[in-house]
Amino acid sequence: MSINQLIEGIIAKKSPIVVGLDPRMEQLPEEIIKTYEDQGCSPYDIVKNSLIEFNKGIIDSVKDLVPAVKPQVAFYEQYGLAGMEAYAETCRYAKASGLYVIADVKRGDIGSTSKAYSLGHLGKVLYKESKLNDFEADSVTVNPYLGDDCLGEFVDEIKAYDKGMFVLVKTSNKSSEQLQNLSVEGKKIYEIVGEMVNDWCQKTIGSKNYSPVGAVVGATYPSEMDTLRKVMPNAYFLVPGYGAQGGGGKDVVNAFNADGLGAIVNSSRGIIFAYKNSGLPYKEAARQATLEMQTDINTALEEAGKKYW
Amino acid sequence: MSINQLIEGIIAKKSPIVVGLDPRMEQLPEEIIKTYEDQGCSPYDIVKNSLIEFNKGIIDSVKDLVPAVKPQVAFYEQYGLAGMEAYAETCRYAKASGLYVIADVKRGDIGSTSKAYSLGHLGKVLYKESKLNDFEADSVTVNPYLGDDCLGEFVDEIKAYDKGMFVLVKTSNKSSEQLQNLSVEGKKIYEIVGEMVNDWCQKTIGSKNYSPVGAVVGATYPSEMDTLRKVMPNAYFLVPGYGAQGGGGKDVVNAFNADGLGAIVNSSRGIIFAYKNSGLPYKEAARQATLEMQTDINTALEEAGKKYW
Repeated sequence: MSINQLIEGIIAKKSPIVVGLDPRMEQLPEEIIKTYEDQGCSPYDIVKNSLIEFNKGIIDSVKDLVPAVKPQVAFYEQYGLAGMEAYAETCRYAKASGLYVIADVKRGDIGSTSKAYSLGHLGKVLYKESKLNDFEADSVTVNPYLGDDCLGEFVDEIKAYDKGMFVLVKTSNKSSEQLQNLSVEGKKIYEIVGEMVNDWCQKTIGSKNYSPVGAVVGATYPSEMDTLRKVMPNAYFLVPGYGAQGGGGKDVVNAFNADGLGAIVNSSRGIIFAYKNSGLPYKEAARQATLEMQTDINTALEEAGKKYW
Repeated sequence: MSINQLIEGIIAKKSPIVVGLDPRMEQLPEEIIKTYEDQGCSPYDIVKNSLIEFNKGIIDSVKDLVPAVKPQVAFYEQYGLAGMEAYAETCRYAKASGLYVIADVKRGDIGSTSKAYSLGHLGKVLYKESKLNDFEADSVTVNPYLGDDCLGEFVDEIKAYDKGMFVLVKTSNKSSEQLQNLSVEGKKIYEIVGEMVNDWCQKTIGSKNYSPVGAVVGATYPSEMDTLRKVMPNAYFLVPGYGAQGGGGKDVVNAFNADGLGAIVNSSRGIIFAYKNSGLPYKEAARQATLEMQTDINTALEEAGKKYW
């Protein structure tokens, strides 16, 4: 799916929102796990099946409300092969549900190695005409520490397969300032990375004025976000840090351009585990939390004169 | 396995060398693939079994010569679940063969997400007393762009399970200079990251004067390596870029301390695909290439007065 299709989805659903699929066994509804325990499944299958069922439930309950989901691969990888089976099935199911899938993998390596990541997550890996890359997504997150010969490898598959990426520019965590906010001749590292991203953007702008090369910019740093919006006018921002990490609707307004587009805000725990605080079943709780987030963000955008619908 | 055990292995085998296990289907010996094709295996099983057989062959042929192997996870991840099955089996087999396994995963994320990576690759992930983390290794490579709240999560498991990590400081690729060589008040970013690593080192030095928190420093930048050796006196350096990427024995000497320890040099393609240029069967070619690398490095160390054996 292309960046243009993501934009169409955002407008059609009135929802610049991506739901983060970050399941943890200890936070899943007990009844899901119990089903597979009662069936006498192995621990491997209990974990795999529970993660899949939970994610499918979330996807089913929010797919008419949001254009995209973002599985965080770490929460699958930690469970080994059982987790990776669940990850693959989650990506497949989300795509089949018409959602744009952002693989939050934060990969990045030297050129030839980034090529393998890029082919695996965005492109095609064939053996005798059989497609092997079970982890194919629409977009990936990429770490810029290794520079352009890393980023460029991803751009190849982005162009060839109409995919996308979000480069880590200013992350939402507290210690992101340690490296990202250092000053080089009056310019912060995050600005310099933003300029690197912008160079790739300018080479890849699509018909809707946005590039498939985007940036991760945390909701927890509104002033940095304001700066970065100007540095990368044609980049889509993937904005983590809303909700559980502390950001609210007003904190993310600066991520959007004057056209009301240019950003998609993530919430993970605040949506998928909303049932913990609401007393509702998990699917209904997720749906309600998504609707509340939608109202919060759209209200803030309307107040800022950034109505896109 | 601990950093002390890695050091003991280096001395016992007279070999500060790690063999990079970066298999690619198109470069494996044809006879391996043919075996599984002739058995009528599915493409999934052909890939999985070929990668496993190739890696086991390499491990068997070099395990008495080197103390460690380094699978680069990208070359498995690209093949989806078939690749990850091969990755898990490769880690298990290498550990069972007495080798120290460095998982070249270059992970790194916000705290709670890095915790999942850390538990999965270094620690324990249990479900009802069943251990699920199939990808457990002795050490991981970690990207520092997100700062200390990322690195700190890995240190927790390093301490709890006697494991290790190598933080990317100065990578071997050409565009590593783009961010890593920027100057902040006269200090390069790689030096600043080196100081971050050194802070963790000083808190975790072991009985052999080295810390389980190490650094990735490319063989392709000898002068940066010289600087970084001083910045992180107690860090073990994982040195990529030898061989196929252009570095030689003389280029890596500065990675070692005066005691002849403190570094382990990686070669991937130069060893595992040595058969392509030698006419020998792949296992013998790998063994011969390893012996040549051992002579090259030990000779350079001896000439530099850094004999450790």
